[in-house]
Amino acid sequence: MRIALASDHAGFALKRELAAWLSELGYEVADLGTTDTESVDYPEFGARLANTIATGSAERGVAICGSGIGISIAVNRNPKCRCARVDEPVSAALAREHNDANVLALGGRLVGSDMAKACVAAFLGTDFAGGRHQRRVDQLSSLLQDSD
Amino acid sequence: MRIALASDHAGFALKRELAAWLSELGYEVADLGTTDTESVDYPEFGARLANTIATGSAERGVAICGSGIGISIAVNRNPKCRCARVDEPVSAALAREHNDANVLALGGRLVGSDMAKACVAAFLGTDFAGGRHQRRVDQLSSLLQDSD
Repeated sequence: MRIALASDHAGFALKRELAAWLSELGYEVADLGTTDTESVDYPEFGARLANTIATGSAERGVAICGSGIGISIAVNRNPKCRCARVDEPVSAALAREHNDANVLALGGRLVGSDMAKACVAAFLGTDFAGGRHQRRVDQLSSLLQDSD
Repeated sequence: MRIALASDHAGFALKRELAAWLSELGYEVADLGTTDTESVDYPEFGARLANTIATGSAERGVAICGSGIGISIAVNRNPKCRCARVDEPVSAALAREHNDANVLALGGRLVGSDMAKACVAAFLGTDFAGGRHQRRVDQLSSLLQDSD
């Protein structure tokens, strides 16, 4: 499975740690930047990750900014992305099980690296439950057209 | 300040409690449903809340489903909404300060009522910081057009 990672400056350190860890676990990792701690704008990196998921260049994404909030909003502007901002693994698993989330958002200034890894592990290790949840996930894809 | 609340069945109990509490505090509350614990689809109620915010019928919104994840994705499909899914007040305050969030998403099956109230209090009591954050917030509004 190919996993794309993107962050702003506030998420850079956690992104680097997660990228190395995921590579060690045998995942193919695409690091979309940013590349250092110089200040950048999270919407650019959220959009970059969203496009990577939407075009099928990666199956899953991890998005990181200071709180995880801004970049989660950016990713969810793309109708093909379902991004869950989480800070513990129960939510990360529910995001997969109920929402078929394809992107996880984390707060690099709020969540420690071990907790972040537990979130990512739950996100990657949990299957979508389907059933009534599929109908709702389909509705999420059509909402964007309705709002135009 | 007028606050709109919406939830699915899993968020109904918490929505009712928050609506009563906000009314006691003197806020004008618009309850957009759902109206009981019968199973409904969170995208419908997220879209209803998003439209209420987008049209200016309410200044702030609180969206609740089981985890807060599904309904936060639904609200963020609307380019005029910035919805933060949180489970503690530090994130709720950061969502206002950095992201000018106008909707808060909560997990009715994950967050207790006192914690939910602390999140809503931080959300309503924190001002947007502006400055460099304004540029990023503006970028969030333009992302949707770019992805079409």
